[in-house]
Amino acid sequence: MARQFETIALIGIGLIGSSIAREIKDKGLAGTVVVSTRSPETLKRAEELGLGDRYTLSAAEAVKDADLVIVSVPVGASGAVAAEIAPHLKQRAIVTDVGSTKGSVIAQMAPHMPAHVHFIPGHPIAGTEYSGPDAGFIGLFKGRWCILTPLPETDADAKAKLRHFWETLGSMVDDMDPEHHDKVLAIVSHLPHIIAYNIVGTADDLETVTESEVIKYSASGFRDFTRLAASDPTMWRDVCLHNKDAILEMLARFSEDLAYLQRAIRWGDGDKLFDLFTRTRAVRRSIIQAGQDTDMVDFGRHAMDKK
Amino acid sequence: MARQFETIALIGIGLIGSSIAREIKDKGLAGTVVVSTRSPETLKRAEELGLGDRYTLSAAEAVKDADLVIVSVPVGASGAVAAEIAPHLKQRAIVTDVGSTKGSVIAQMAPHMPAHVHFIPGHPIAGTEYSGPDAGFIGLFKGRWCILTPLPETDADAKAKLRHFWETLGSMVDDMDPEHHDKVLAIVSHLPHIIAYNIVGTADDLETVTESEVIKYSASGFRDFTRLAASDPTMWRDVCLHNKDAILEMLARFSEDLAYLQRAIRWGDGDKLFDLFTRTRAVRRSIIQAGQDTDMVDFGRHAMDKK
Repeated sequence: MARQFETIALIGIGLIGSSIAREIKDKGLAGTVVVSTRSPETLKRAEELGLGDRYTLSAAEAVKDADLVIVSVPVGASGAVAAEIAPHLKQRAIVTDVGSTKGSVIAQMAPHMPAHVHFIPGHPIAGTEYSGPDAGFIGLFKGRWCILTPLPETDADAKAKLRHFWETLGSMVDDMDPEHHDKVLAIVSHLPHIIAYNIVGTADDLETVTESEVIKYSASGFRDFTRLAASDPTMWRDVCLHNKDAILEMLARFSEDLAYLQRAIRWGDGDKLFDLFTRTRAVRRSIIQAGQDTDMVDFGRHAMDKK
Repeated sequence: MARQFETIALIGIGLIGSSIAREIKDKGLAGTVVVSTRSPETLKRAEELGLGDRYTLSAAEAVKDADLVIVSVPVGASGAVAAEIAPHLKQRAIVTDVGSTKGSVIAQMAPHMPAHVHFIPGHPIAGTEYSGPDAGFIGLFKGRWCILTPLPETDADAKAKLRHFWETLGSMVDDMDPEHHDKVLAIVSHLPHIIAYNIVGTADDLETVTESEVIKYSASGFRDFTRLAASDPTMWRDVCLHNKDAILEMLARFSEDLAYLQRAIRWGDGDKLFDLFTRTRAVRRSIIQAGQDTDMVDFGRHAMDKK
């Protein structure tokens, strides 16, 4: 495929950053890829994996010739990265990020961005339960949505270039208001992760049921939750702290609904239970029809169980 | 493999019953398989699928020559089935079930069981989000646990025969006290399903985020929950009503832990969040080590996404 940028700087080289790096190399999208992370071990590993052309511990150094800068760090670190790179950004560079919260990232980064660059916040809705530079792979973004939350003054050409970049990686791209993005993600991503972390914690704390029993019999439902609850703790701590309002709103609704369900169980109201349990089946069908999940039994993993 | 029973009667021919039927035929475990269900449509479908040798709408008729009777109906129907079959059971027949709650099934069925049969409640911990006779398949029980909750007076030979039957289907078999079974299942299975149903309901009710947004962006975590929330509504209504005490206890603990987590989010206590999010990763690792889940990214479904 055609080169899209002369130089791309990747700040942060975990699951997302390293998947982007692999895609850029695979598709020949840049002349030079500069990889930067503040951890010497991670940088060394990125170099061993051959993820870039140049490697540096200094984000400032990394961005100086870059036409596209992609910040892929836990959202709590966005402000510090922005402050560090701002004075070194090239004229008309496009600066984007991949953070799961957008209001907070904009609040942290936008004030530092010089007028001569194009700052376009973004969020590829893709990931796995694994983290670090080894976890990345080609195809992570394929068929997944990438949401851009451009600021009102954003240059149309710069946005089109960034959009085209994500489309080349296989993504479908949507524009959204940052505040709305944060509400949508609170329900489809943040709340599920928090609930999964919570239920795994509850199970882990029981005195009457041993941990080995929880593990042995996990195939009856529990194990689905443990996948989400195995996600990167730093990333998720930061998401909780940086999308607080929307998350607290969704948590309140969830708890209210759960209290209603609990009461139906206590009072033996089978019709209420049956109605809810029927309605939710339709949501699953819609997700499969939309191509956002496989219709294979047990996500297809049953076939793998039988190995 | 060798024939283990002359005649097996299957009362109920849904996901579990029809998987058992397929295994019996595949492995030649019975001379005759009698299939019974109270729904004429389901019985017709079972016959089309060739799941048995004889088909009848009458559970009483089905059991009269059976050496092994397997009741695979929603747990709320156990009592009625027991009352219907009791007078027709053969001398020394083994009667078992596959229900997800054991205290309630014993309370419903045991009083009806004549002294001349061996009643051994059981629970194969296996299933998928699909239901009905078409949903069954060979291999469903392979590598999964099956828990037997025998009553104190249970005949050792009869129990050994039933145990051997499940082992032939690929299961690992454990004995457990019924009350303890119900607590273990409340945390590893019932609570996860209830939570999944609840979160899908909460998402479906939002006014600020549209249903199509929930579906489009579900790959970020939500879709894992929808699989569990697509499970059979009748079965799960009955589980909620028939394991009420243990479920209410686990729900109370879950809600208490969630309130603690919510408070940490509200007050920005990142250390508390990080600690929980780190601890839960270890549980996932143990489940994978125990062979109860695949270590493939996204349960391996990512490979299928890319089709």
